[in-house]
Amino acid sequence: MTIIMHDLAGGDAALRFSPYCWRTRFALAHKGLPVETLPWRFTEKAEIAFSGQGRVPVIRDGDTVVSDSWAIAEYLEATYPTPALFGSATAQAHARFINAWADSVLLGGIARLILRDIYDVIDEKDRSYFREAREARFGMTLEEAQAGREARVETFRDSLQPLRIVLRAQPWFGGAAPSYADAIIAGTLMWPHCCSRFAVLAEDDPIAAWFERMRDLYGGLGRNALRA
Amino acid sequence: MTIIMHDLAGGDAALRFSPYCWRTRFALAHKGLPVETLPWRFTEKAEIAFSGQGRVPVIRDGDTVVSDSWAIAEYLEATYPTPALFGSATAQAHARFINAWADSVLLGGIARLILRDIYDVIDEKDRSYFREAREARFGMTLEEAQAGREARVETFRDSLQPLRIVLRAQPWFGGAAPSYADAIIAGTLMWPHCCSRFAVLAEDDPIAAWFERMRDLYGGLGRNALRA
Repeated sequence: MTIIMHDLAGGDAALRFSPYCWRTRFALAHKGLPVETLPWRFTEKAEIAFSGQGRVPVIRDGDTVVSDSWAIAEYLEATYPTPALFGSATAQAHARFINAWADSVLLGGIARLILRDIYDVIDEKDRSYFREAREARFGMTLEEAQAGREARVETFRDSLQPLRIVLRAQPWFGGAAPSYADAIIAGTLMWPHCCSRFAVLAEDDPIAAWFERMRDLYGGLGRNALRA
Repeated sequence: MTIIMHDLAGGDAALRFSPYCWRTRFALAHKGLPVETLPWRFTEKAEIAFSGQGRVPVIRDGDTVVSDSWAIAEYLEATYPTPALFGSATAQAHARFINAWADSVLLGGIARLILRDIYDVIDEKDRSYFREAREARFGMTLEEAQAGREARVETFRDSLQPLRIVLRAQPWFGGAAPSYADAIIAGTLMWPHCCSRFAVLAEDDPIAAWFERMRDLYGGLGRNALRA
């Protein structure tokens, strides 16, 4: 049965850029599960009210509704064990740290580099909501949040050093093969990749080389994604 | 057979404070393996020359010599599979990220809070070596490196947010039970715990509560450790 996924979309419905939705897209592709994605905008809270909350990703798998990318990964692993996203409870517990790091350091760092670019690609009807919510969260305007990014990007890149240390020792964050850890990092990097032309990674960064390989997986899922 | 471990010691031979050696101590204890630790000082390079390098931990298990805490964990897991430190290749691959994060963010952050305190507890014969090597690495004196720590500690504590996010969801970094991920974080925190009285964690930090529980494990291995 095809899984239905509510997926954040931009002004162009084909532009999909949410870092959390991309984690789920990669997870579904890893499992080889058929999915139909429905474009969803920030202000369409009513469309996903059935999930009991107001954010995407939300998936509907038959009668089961799951929201939150981490909860979806756990659901998929429990319901469709192979190919494994984790493969063991310990691997899953360790991946939770990677998820927490990605949410705070990676996602938080990227936000300050592309916040105004996002505004340009989202649907017009979302813009006042987005500006108000994000300016409240960051305590500054979208323009201020992104200002000076050329000077700040090096500090951001330095914060990714743990990723490089891992890639010196193994080809994927999952080890010899990709796991949900790869979906977490690549999903988060699809966000700036799709909605900005600002290079959050240097061209010669080993993380960039891994991200290239990751976009080739699953029939080029990340490779073929629309960029703004 | 008892495993021999070369373990960094202070002026008091009973003071053991290396963050890497503590990871190995916890790993050995987790496996339930008998160990005899030999005090070692920074300048006793000749004592561990048989290992082909100049840093501890070094273990000797019969005819096998292994150095580097990560390599030791891999060796122990391969040689004595249960109780598991990882339990699967994916869990091990994910733990490598936690190890890399601990080396760069956790250990690097702590160093700037206690570098001068360490100098006070190491053996007198190590002091000029330690001062020279660390001042070259940090590009400043030991005193400068530690200066202003009361003002800087909040930034360090903020950088530990991924740990707190994980502990909101599970009791151990290994999930329902400790894994090598717990040894990595606790081992690193034993370093300031043993050689400084400066509180790197706030008393009400959930990481501190987990660290308390961790020190009670393995017959109170961390609880009974000598503090300077």
